[in-house]
Amino acid sequence: MAYTLFYFPGNANLAPHMALEELGVPYELALLDRAGGEHKSAAYLARNPTGRIPTLLAPQPNGGDQTVFETAAILLYLADNHPDSGLAPAPGSADRGQFLTWLIHLTNTIQPEYRVFYYPEQHVTDPSHAADAKATAERRLGEMFVLVDRELATRPYIAGEHVTVADFLLLMLVRWGRSFARPPRDLPHVGRLCAELLARPAVRRAFAQEKLAAPFI
Amino acid sequence: MAYTLFYFPGNANLAPHMALEELGVPYELALLDRAGGEHKSAAYLARNPTGRIPTLLAPQPNGGDQTVFETAAILLYLADNHPDSGLAPAPGSADRGQFLTWLIHLTNTIQPEYRVFYYPEQHVTDPSHAADAKATAERRLGEMFVLVDRELATRPYIAGEHVTVADFLLLMLVRWGRSFARPPRDLPHVGRLCAELLARPAVRRAFAQEKLAAPFI
Repeated sequence: MAYTLFYFPGNANLAPHMALEELGVPYELALLDRAGGEHKSAAYLARNPTGRIPTLLAPQPNGGDQTVFETAAILLYLADNHPDSGLAPAPGSADRGQFLTWLIHLTNTIQPEYRVFYYPEQHVTDPSHAADAKATAERRLGEMFVLVDRELATRPYIAGEHVTVADFLLLMLVRWGRSFARPPRDLPHVGRLCAELLARPAVRRAFAQEKLAAPFI
Repeated sequence: MAYTLFYFPGNANLAPHMALEELGVPYELALLDRAGGEHKSAAYLARNPTGRIPTLLAPQPNGGDQTVFETAAILLYLADNHPDSGLAPAPGSADRGQFLTWLIHLTNTIQPEYRVFYYPEQHVTDPSHAADAKATAERRLGEMFVLVDRELATRPYIAGEHVTVADFLLLMLVRWGRSFARPPRDLPHVGRLCAELLARPAVRRAFAQEKLAAPFI
């Protein structure tokens, strides 16, 4: 009984991949042929109708699998399924609210803005407007990371005193901005946290297994 | 010991408001002076630095409050804090993965697209591109709801056989599209679920307390 993570190097699977390595649970990686459109194939869409990467298959006690997609959902699912890991504050605990707040903020504010940055042509009807959409997304992302940086000035991790899966999501999102004119890694508190996360053996293994080369962020 | 929900009628507080009514727990509504910019005031930003509505104050055993924001985080926090309500499948249960998947999908795909629809001028640098951004968002939202409709063809509620807080989020997002040329309420399965939700006494009370007039969706 092992998890299966459908992935493509450097895609949104990277944060769940870090979580699986931190948990130390059995799992397999299933590389998608992205160039060949495997993530838009009927077989993949039957599991994940959004056609996005990643998808997690989670083994169930009855021998079947539960399919989970959306990066933040996979992170939350994994952390809550392995409460001894401490990778999410338990429901009812003092840090749970702050944890959920920032996990959701990262996934519904920063992550979707990257869709505009990376695929601006999908967010305009007149192709000549795409460059504006992309540049505006980069500016907005910069402002969003400044807000996160101010939060991290008050505590070591985004959810409080302990590392959680929300930090892995943040690291992945920081990485995605490494080409910005003002990359988020240069913010003092964001940069400090990312450097610490990148030094974790589990995180290094996830980057290595996806064959991601430096600079990582 | 009561929850406090900072709100403005019809804003993103509507889904958490439905959840509080369904739970039947003690809570107070705190109306924000949105026209006067209260959600951008120093006092509000100290609790919720995004300056967005809503924010929840959750009473803690020690007598203090825990601050939770981001609509989906509030929904998840409330449901998990009151497990007997059944408004979220418990961690480890068979439906948890599907529940998290769709709660996150709604909040990181449909909800942010509405920001572009309602505030297109914030997503362009050249104001003459705003109309394109808005129209493209409406088209994309239409496609997103079609995907949700296909899911709802296979089960009564978005997370499976039982109503969850993810359904309240969906109802709120359907409402926000009521001015579309092809409003999401007209999709057969989305429309069927929303009609059922709107008939629930707790949902009706939330709409009434926010003084929202028909048509509701």
